[in-house]
Amino acid sequence: MLTYQLKKAPGVPLYESLYQCIRADILSGRLAPGQKLPSKRALAANLEVSKITVEGAYAQLLSEGFITAREKVGYFVEALEAPPSPPSIPAQPEPEDSDYIDLTGGGPGKFPFSVWSRLQREVMLDYGESLLRPLPNQGYAPLRRAIAAHLGAFRGMNVAPENILIGAGTDFLYNLLIQLLGRDKIYAVEDPGYGKILKIYAASGAGCLAAPMDSLGVMPETLENAHVLHISPSHHFPTGQVMPTQRRLELLNWAARGDRWIIEDDYDSEFRFDARPLPALQSLDRAGRVIYMNTFSKSLAPSIRISYMVLPPALMARFQEKLGFYGCTVPSFEQYTLERFLSRGHFEKHINRMRKLYKNRRNRLVELLNSSPISDKITILEKDAGLHFLLRFDTEESDETLTERFWAAGIKIQPLSAYYHGPAPEEANHCLIVNYDRLSDENLEKLERRLELLVR
Amino acid sequence: MLTYQLKKAPGVPLYESLYQCIRADILSGRLAPGQKLPSKRALAANLEVSKITVEGAYAQLLSEGFITAREKVGYFVEALEAPPSPPSIPAQPEPEDSDYIDLTGGGPGKFPFSVWSRLQREVMLDYGESLLRPLPNQGYAPLRRAIAAHLGAFRGMNVAPENILIGAGTDFLYNLLIQLLGRDKIYAVEDPGYGKILKIYAASGAGCLAAPMDSLGVMPETLENAHVLHISPSHHFPTGQVMPTQRRLELLNWAARGDRWIIEDDYDSEFRFDARPLPALQSLDRAGRVIYMNTFSKSLAPSIRISYMVLPPALMARFQEKLGFYGCTVPSFEQYTLERFLSRGHFEKHINRMRKLYKNRRNRLVELLNSSPISDKITILEKDAGLHFLLRFDTEESDETLTERFWAAGIKIQPLSAYYHGPAPEEANHCLIVNYDRLSDENLEKLERRLELLVR
Repeated sequence: MLTYQLKKAPGVPLYESLYQCIRADILSGRLAPGQKLPSKRALAANLEVSKITVEGAYAQLLSEGFITAREKVGYFVEALEAPPSPPSIPAQPEPEDSDYIDLTGGGPGKFPFSVWSRLQREVMLDYGESLLRPLPNQGYAPLRRAIAAHLGAFRGMNVAPENILIGAGTDFLYNLLIQLLGRDKIYAVEDPGYGKILKIYAASGAGCLAAPMDSLGVMPETLENAHVLHISPSHHFPTGQVMPTQRRLELLNWAARGDRWIIEDDYDSEFRFDARPLPALQSLDRAGRVIYMNTFSKSLAPSIRISYMVLPPALMARFQEKLGFYGCTVPSFEQYTLERFLSRGHFEKHINRMRKLYKNRRNRLVELLNSSPISDKITILEKDAGLHFLLRFDTEESDETLTERFWAAGIKIQPLSAYYHGPAPEEANHCLIVNYDRLSDENLEKLERRLELLVR
Repeated sequence: MLTYQLKKAPGVPLYESLYQCIRADILSGRLAPGQKLPSKRALAANLEVSKITVEGAYAQLLSEGFITAREKVGYFVEALEAPPSPPSIPAQPEPEDSDYIDLTGGGPGKFPFSVWSRLQREVMLDYGESLLRPLPNQGYAPLRRAIAAHLGAFRGMNVAPENILIGAGTDFLYNLLIQLLGRDKIYAVEDPGYGKILKIYAASGAGCLAAPMDSLGVMPETLENAHVLHISPSHHFPTGQVMPTQRRLELLNWAARGDRWIIEDDYDSEFRFDARPLPALQSLDRAGRVIYMNTFSKSLAPSIRISYMVLPPALMARFQEKLGFYGCTVPSFEQYTLERFLSRGHFEKHINRMRKLYKNRRNRLVELLNSSPISDKITILEKDAGLHFLLRFDTEESDETLTERFWAAGIKIQPLSAYYHGPAPEEANHCLIVNYDRLSDENLEKLERRLELLVR
């Protein structure tokens, strides 16, 4: 006779526990195929539960095909194909925080909480149920209009909202682009550059090419085999270079010479300090070959996963035809909130505030470095734009050793050479990349002391 | 002498307008390469603006390489490669609402706004700045724990939070899976089935196979060439079939016989009415071949783009190694809020409320249909589970005509035959799919009158 200790768990009916026990025995083989189960009354008595409990369990087992009922005879264990046996694999550990001063970047550390949450409440009250209506796959139309207006005012771009596509982060947009432009194409990225981009193109099965740069940027003559070029002309990472108009036009003509595309990654153009940012490459493009891409993760908060791209009209038409079945990946609620944040001028205010903050932080950092114990060993390069600059060391040390000494002193930092897809050229050695976007005032203080550890 | 009407625009400095005019003339060729620009003083006088304005414009043009300055001589237009000329392409129209009664589905129409926004405020206050910290690429750990707990309580699944991966919608997760499992594999989907899934696999360049179904589901013997099988065993769309344990075990053994995987799409398992939902296939899988997938878009709100998958430990390890560079696509803020919504029991309450609501709606709808003018022509099939059922018509009409008559009467509805990848078998004809998840009480009233239009 079957005997189980039926444990009473909150929210779990008793018949459920009984069902689980019998099911486990059938799957384990402890109850053999064809074996007859005790009658409901007998089992109920044996387990000291009500007959209804047993009935519930049997009914469930019946409905799932674990047992069969034979009229006037009873219940029998079904002959089930035995499930395969389990493998044993270790689990993945969780990532953890640390006490490092992080100069490897990761987006802004300030966010206009009060404004944002006020807008969230408003949106919830004003739109209610309509927040549940599915949005167009390109994203909430008023948000696209607000983005177009922003691009017009801040980047001198003339963009039609219907050519904007909103997505949950640039990684996702890259994936869409590869499906749109084709995996059979060769995607060229800047060398040095942000390695993740190449990884994403590679993971999607596209051909990849690391295009070397001169002082103006990537060189058209190295791109003859490429079909798609991914660049950040307004502020290259990690060199900080700004591409002059001449080279921009050369690249536009490279693109116009074939079925070629340029992806303009404009990720931190909001943060030029000493001059107005250069106009976007997209606003020079009259052949419809430039795909403009930007994100609010850098300018607003990394935890806000809203990026967008501006497609040339022909390409947007192709997207709707080929990939129009994809739904928009950004929650409506965030899109409605961001729309208000933009159209009511909060984003502009926020950007201006951040620009001041970053400029001060950068100046304090530069000052600190120039008066630090390592001041006589360093030169600061390309510090006029964006959220990072380069630190060139007058040293014989390898970049590995140099970087390791910083980490040992509690400073997370990366060498420029690490961003080359091949071996770095001589002039790229002995350079560290200083991202100060996440550097808090508190850490700025700490940094001074930690730099002293370096020269001990 | 250059002459422009400089328009004063709010927020746009005058030098900016002047810069734009000259830049346009250089790009259009109206200002020829090598041409000398007027002196700052002369141009300022001519335009009746201050010398500083002209200086600002020239400085900007210089910094962008549009002009060059020759010591003591003046400013000259640079020789720029001419940009290519524009193509003309029509823009995309916006999708629009309508007065149709929509029986094609699209997720729940009720959402617990007050609770959700209260939790949002709490989250904002309680976590503040820490909301800005980037999350693990698998998603917010406490949310994964809450999901694991939910799966344990509602689906009898034993899931480790470290094997859960959270993403912005299932479309995105499919894209990740293809990159993880390989484009060189053949992905089998259920035929009939939700066509979008096949489209996504195809768009990502994977091999595809439409697997026919018998009354138990897809048949292992038709899957010899497939490597990945995508199914919804707990409630198949559109047939509404529930896969019995026997077939589940056969498919598990199919998967274990090679380097094969089963993607279990459990999209609306929360909504079984007359019986407890069947346990997930995943909980029968001991060989680690099942990838479980579910979404909050169906159970909570389509506008909340939070889906997740449970990977077998070995596969999660592979993901972290191969694709660990992908960031999480869901905003932290939504993840924190959903975590509270789940762990404080609001989701359970919501599901129970919705289940009641859907059950009543379904009963009213069935009643309405059975007492409607078309009652003598219809049979209702598979109405015990999920958010849709089938309406079989006793008619000679083609599905096209039948469907068109519904649309003409203001009822959006799809025929079962439309979900077959090939031609539908005889028994699948004359069946319409009734999704009632978006059917409001108001529309239920309307529906009665519109059904009368059908028999006129």
